[in-house]
Amino acid sequence: MNVLITSGGTIEKIDNVRSISNMSTGRLGSIIAASFLANSAVKKVFYVCTKTTVLPQSNNLNNVEIIYANSVADLEEAVKSIVLHNKIDIIIHSMAVSDYRVKAVTTLSALRENSTSDVNKGGKISSELDDMVLLMERTPKVISLFQELSPASILVGFKLLDNAAHQTLIDKGFEVLTKNKCSFVLANDLKDITGDSHIGYLIDENKNFTKYTTKTEIADAIVSATIL
Amino acid sequence: MNVLITSGGTIEKIDNVRSISNMSTGRLGSIIAASFLANSAVKKVFYVCTKTTVLPQSNNLNNVEIIYANSVADLEEAVKSIVLHNKIDIIIHSMAVSDYRVKAVTTLSALRENSTSDVNKGGKISSELDDMVLLMERTPKVISLFQELSPASILVGFKLLDNAAHQTLIDKGFEVLTKNKCSFVLANDLKDITGDSHIGYLIDENKNFTKYTTKTEIADAIVSATIL
Repeated sequence: MNVLITSGGTIEKIDNVRSISNMSTGRLGSIIAASFLANSAVKKVFYVCTKTTVLPQSNNLNNVEIIYANSVADLEEAVKSIVLHNKIDIIIHSMAVSDYRVKAVTTLSALRENSTSDVNKGGKISSELDDMVLLMERTPKVISLFQELSPASILVGFKLLDNAAHQTLIDKGFEVLTKNKCSFVLANDLKDITGDSHIGYLIDENKNFTKYTTKTEIADAIVSATIL
Repeated sequence: MNVLITSGGTIEKIDNVRSISNMSTGRLGSIIAASFLANSAVKKVFYVCTKTTVLPQSNNLNNVEIIYANSVADLEEAVKSIVLHNKIDIIIHSMAVSDYRVKAVTTLSALRENSTSDVNKGGKISSELDDMVLLMERTPKVISLFQELSPASILVGFKLLDNAAHQTLIDKGFEVLTKNKCSFVLANDLKDITGDSHIGYLIDENKNFTKYTTKTEIADAIVSATIL
């Protein structure tokens, strides 16, 4: 079996020295990768991440291919290429993907004059703008690609909320599942991720869910649920 | 002698999961720290950095204190506290400090209506804004604090440009020196930093400068110039 895991948080450039990133270390993704690598049914793990993402620790590192992708555009390209050239049985999309990227950099005064003149002419933006404004645009949803490109794969999606009510978390997680034809969604909340403790709910297609309380438990549950 | 080194790139939060960072690994700062630690005149190095900054490699790690600071506000607080509680002989301010931080998060449509309603009510900003806008503000210049708080310290400033003409680089570097009463400024250009090669010009108070071509050369030159 081949497994594709996306892990860490994407990085979108503002200019040559500044960027917007999603604060995910990739620790959960790295532990999920290690759990798959420990299973003898797994032939290869494709691990898509950024340069700063935590990498899998395993005795079977020969069976891992690390593919670096920073931006959402890089990520799209990477997963397309992997899925087109390999039969992927299981996809674990744990990467925290930017919902937004920079469309243009301008100033508030330019905007007030109905202009959107871009002050980002390549290179490094001046350090001396008093009213700099970043105009953002939504990024394409990478998760929707998987069903399109590899409909036979078992897909696990992730939903992270911040300080949500329990039912909201389950509802929002299930929404991701139905919208993207996932087999499972791991729903978790920032307030429940502290040090070694990591509460996650693995939701299935019937909206049933099981609660896990550490990254290792979550990883093992995902492996058990997806390797049939 | 006590040395204060700031290293890496600051990280400014947008919300609980997103941030803007300056792309500096802190490799140069870590090598400068190691050069100071190798010098017997140095009693202690205070190394201010972020969680992702490269740390100094040295046999004298007992003589290093690592102080974590993410945002510009954290950095200000950290350097104030260090300088107030210790006699600092040399300050190496190599950290890539954000020139901007997020003042408010709004939408283009709200701005057009002359409103600047903040959509960032704590927590995580919605993933579904079609015209999100980040209103930025300039951060205080941390380098100007050093002269104020510790006028007797030898201060080394840094100036990074992107694809500038040689004379512009020297002029801009010297501007930083005079403005902030630095003893030296290390001026460098993104285009000259590739892999192990790192061209830097160490400019003195007379606007004389010497060119160095690796991080180790730069680090050793800074140590020689500042330890009298």
